[in-house]
Amino acid sequence: MELKCVVAVVRPDAVEVLERKLGAIHIHGLTVTRVRGFGAHPNLFADDWTTEHAKVEIFAQAEHVDALVKTIMEIAHVGAIGDGVVAVIPVEKFFRVRTQAEAVP
Amino acid sequence: MELKCVVAVVRPDAVEVLERKLGAIHIHGLTVTRVRGFGAHPNLFADDWTTEHAKVEIFAQAEHVDALVKTIMEIAHVGAIGDGVVAVIPVEKFFRVRTQAEAVP
Amino acid sequence: MELKCVVAVVRPDAVEVLERKLGAIHIHGLTVTRVRGFGAHPNLFADDWTTEHAKVEIFAQAEHVDALVKTIMEIAHVGAIGDGVVAVIPVEKFFRVRTQAEAVP
Repeated sequence: MELKCVVAVVRPDAVEVLERKLGAIHIHGLTVTRVRGFGAHPNLFADDWTTEHAKVEIFAQAEHVDALVKTIMEIAHVGAIGDGVVAVIPVEKFFRVRTQAEAVP
Repeated sequence: MELKCVVAVVRPDAVEVLERKLGAIHIHGLTVTRVRGFGAHPNLFADDWTTEHAKVEIFAQAEHVDALVKTIMEIAHVGAIGDGVVAVIPVEKFFRVRTQAEAVP
Repeated sequence: MELKCVVAVVRPDAVEVLERKLGAIHIHGLTVTRVRGFGAHPNLFADDWTTEHAKVEIFAQAEHVDALVKTIMEIAHVGAIGDGVVAVIPVEKFFRVRTQAEAVP
């Protein structure tokens, strides 16, 4: 089974909606990290050019990735700079600690 | 030489033990990030369904990955929901800043 | 187009200089996370052996990665333990949320 990690850097206020929508598309886990960053347009009003964002990481089966990326972009979309990005990274193995065995995310 | 990044999302109290055990299995570096998240069973007692976890990232040679994953799962294992997950991600190149050259993790 | 994610774990005070230098080498976005960690030489003066570092993640086209890694190492280099590491990870797809479409980082 082919696995991926979908990494999204989005506005912090998109995260809670995202969490609640993901159950409907076969996603059963996500990790959120508070980050700072800038994209194509640095925030020149901040000393270090960055703004606060949230990084969301989701392990998923390859066949669910397209729907997942689409859902993330719909929820995170404002249509302005700072909307963020989504990337797909390959994952070779995935284990669940509770069962101490390989698992399907 | 083939390299991997082992990413574990575990309970925060597993991290300190993990740090002390890793020297014994040829691991000489790790990064810890405070994250929030949920797995197969969201924490329905929290407003955003998440609980606090720690993300541990370790760059390692491919031949050490199996022992590393096994060690992480033994230390992080409680046998209950919230135990977390471990994933293995491919790494193409690895450099040490002090020597400004490619290196073995 | 081949894409990569360049991940650097460096001293926190290297980040601001890094942010300002990257525009000159075709990099138009980065994410910074506060982390703790140790490398080849654990900080034995701290209870958990770790020191505070910053993780910088940059999505980039493959052809810009060598210059990017070189720039990061020049800026983050002190020549002492704790200087940190840089890794290159494959990226399969990259989307910009504002346009809701695949994009070039």
